[in-house]
Amino acid sequence: MLKFIDGGVCAAQGFRAAGVHAGVKTHAEWKKDVALIVSDVECAAAAVFTKNVVKAAPIHVDRRHLADGRARAVIANSGNANACAPQGEENAERMCAAAARAIGCKPEDVLVSSTGVIGQRINVEAIEAAVPALYAALERSAEASDAAGHAIMTTDTVKKEAAVETTVGGRTVRLGGVAKGSGMIHPNMGTMLCFLTTDCAVSPEMIKAALLETAAVSFNRISVDGDTSTNDTCCVLANGLAGNEPITAKGPDYDAFLEALKALCVELAKEMASDGEGARHLITCSVTGAKSEQSAETIAKSVVSSTLTKAAIFGADANWGRVLCAMGYSGEEFDPDKVSVHFASAAGDIQVCAGGRGLDFDEDLAKKILTEHDVEINISMGEGEASCICWGCDITYDYIKINGDYRT
Amino acid sequence: MLKFIDGGVCAAQGFRAAGVHAGVKTHAEWKKDVALIVSDVECAAAAVFTKNVVKAAPIHVDRRHLADGRARAVIANSGNANACAPQGEENAERMCAAAARAIGCKPEDVLVSSTGVIGQRINVEAIEAAVPALYAALERSAEASDAAGHAIMTTDTVKKEAAVETTVGGRTVRLGGVAKGSGMIHPNMGTMLCFLTTDCAVSPEMIKAALLETAAVSFNRISVDGDTSTNDTCCVLANGLAGNEPITAKGPDYDAFLEALKALCVELAKEMASDGEGARHLITCSVTGAKSEQSAETIAKSVVSSTLTKAAIFGADANWGRVLCAMGYSGEEFDPDKVSVHFASAAGDIQVCAGGRGLDFDEDLAKKILTEHDVEINISMGEGEASCICWGCDITYDYIKINGDYRT
Repeated sequence: MLKFIDGGVCAAQGFRAAGVHAGVKTHAEWKKDVALIVSDVECAAAAVFTKNVVKAAPIHVDRRHLADGRARAVIANSGNANACAPQGEENAERMCAAAARAIGCKPEDVLVSSTGVIGQRINVEAIEAAVPALYAALERSAEASDAAGHAIMTTDTVKKEAAVETTVGGRTVRLGGVAKGSGMIHPNMGTMLCFLTTDCAVSPEMIKAALLETAAVSFNRISVDGDTSTNDTCCVLANGLAGNEPITAKGPDYDAFLEALKALCVELAKEMASDGEGARHLITCSVTGAKSEQSAETIAKSVVSSTLTKAAIFGADANWGRVLCAMGYSGEEFDPDKVSVHFASAAGDIQVCAGGRGLDFDEDLAKKILTEHDVEINISMGEGEASCICWGCDITYDYIKINGDYRT
Repeated sequence: MLKFIDGGVCAAQGFRAAGVHAGVKTHAEWKKDVALIVSDVECAAAAVFTKNVVKAAPIHVDRRHLADGRARAVIANSGNANACAPQGEENAERMCAAAARAIGCKPEDVLVSSTGVIGQRINVEAIEAAVPALYAALERSAEASDAAGHAIMTTDTVKKEAAVETTVGGRTVRLGGVAKGSGMIHPNMGTMLCFLTTDCAVSPEMIKAALLETAAVSFNRISVDGDTSTNDTCCVLANGLAGNEPITAKGPDYDAFLEALKALCVELAKEMASDGEGARHLITCSVTGAKSEQSAETIAKSVVSSTLTKAAIFGADANWGRVLCAMGYSGEEFDPDKVSVHFASAAGDIQVCAGGRGLDFDEDLAKKILTEHDVEINISMGEGEASCICWGCDITYDYIKINGDYRT
């Protein structure tokens, strides 16, 4: 029933999007830097934000605007994070007000996000000047989703976009989204922006519940470099145009919606992990046989966050000792003598460790396996029935290059 | 009174050392790979070990051998970590027994450490065969300390060695040490080995207390890449030959000894941080005005552990937003609006952030400051009187290169 479809953030009925160059990014005039996503009607809305103590101005503004659980649009820019910056909240409010004027709604019904350099005043005048053109460019199309997806990219090398279709209460329901996230991605959602839309009818309470459940098993299970950002935001707008009986409590309809939201967000999370700055490999770490899901998650996250493991995968080096090492400093207690480890990919599957001890293995095959883009580290704990999957990427020369001179 | 002196691990009376090539490292016959450090008489001894759940075999052996708080010698090898390896403890015990036979002491009076590749059986036969030559090479000299220091190096580019002299109870007391540590160094003491010797007379209880106090403010305040190892060990042997009244309780003598031990270990810790794999910069992060020392330490560690901050320092990019960001996800609560940040080095001092907001600053001067080898990130919290200093290094292309193909 659940299937992936085209259309991204415009896949759901009643959502239009646009992305243009406003001038926040000064070094490349052809780079889009402001996005607008608008629903034809008011939406139930919810968001989750960074846990970083240092929060960008838009997050404070969004919290106020979401107090009533309602929103109609999102305006977002790249090129400047509007964090630790002069007149931060004032300028974030000005972005909402400019969008609201064009749309004809209240400023409080507009959410705002920013990503880019920290500590410099955002060029809000350029954004205000661009809003009429941005509004005029709104349309419901794959191209419009693409434009919005590009407008929020920073060091991302590809735009992130996905959409799914499912059935809720007998009605076809669509969910879509665009996201950005490259450097600084971590379990606590380092600089990622993700804007989700759906035509499902769902109450503000239940959309919030579904978003929290989903973030925990998708965006919170990826890691690129362990740094978390001041700006991370994932928000969802639900406009109800699918015509299903509104979801106001847990039950079969909620479950169907949740399943679709999770599928969508896991896909976007994997796209982000795969596009970690400079990354050449998507690393999927699966921990099975753990004593609890929490324990499995802590261990899997520690492995995908380990700089040394990431460097080994970059070098296609089957250095499983680093995997055990990362498991060992995760903070979880376990018996190393029960651990087994496999490396796997489209090129094959090889066991490298059993009972916590190294096995003789075919180094040539291991190299072949680890040379694939998508590689798996499959760990069995031998302690219970729980499992978890987390995603990350390797660390490469390009990561250093990209981040050694980000501001200039 | 306290001064740095030459002689390393042989600076204290009654300690001899040696380092030879035994053949654990198979790829370079000129590389020393086994070290021996021996006291003329029995010592009070103590050690601290990795907190990693996955512990190498030598650590289990050392714990047993230190049960009586006494030891006479240390044998250590590089090239193989003897972790997750077949016959691990058996082979670690064989190393102790071989050393004990040569010295003429009990195997339980010998401590053992290993560092290198995880998961492969250690070539204990090669070590046993080398022990007679190793024992014959023992001498008390700067050259002998140098040989021992080299024999424990893995990806280290320079040997780490220091010694200090002070007065305890009216007697001249010396403390010295050799250490290794490069990749995987972190607050929980990732792959570091450190062997300390002193001729101070001190009880097993008090040497243990002094070592714990010292490790907390030296080795536990450095970070290279956030990974901690299976093998980290710091041990100290105190043979009492300085002739001071033995230290058996806290008091002025203990304080004088502790001060010297801290100075020695901070120096060795900085040498390790400075030689982080591929590092070009020693980063010193000082946090002042914090509400507690613990809070200051957590924040400073988060900054020196931040991959993005490390990459910015590599690029001599005064991207202070990453410093605030790393402070923010440290887990400590604080008011970002009270934070100020300076970058400093021999080339100057520049304030880049006040009251949590960016300042206009001279980018050329900032670049000059951050181009120096030793750079400081000085943070003022504006919340209290406590402070802490932690050390780290930048992340470079060479880090990736070194760790992308470590085993081959």
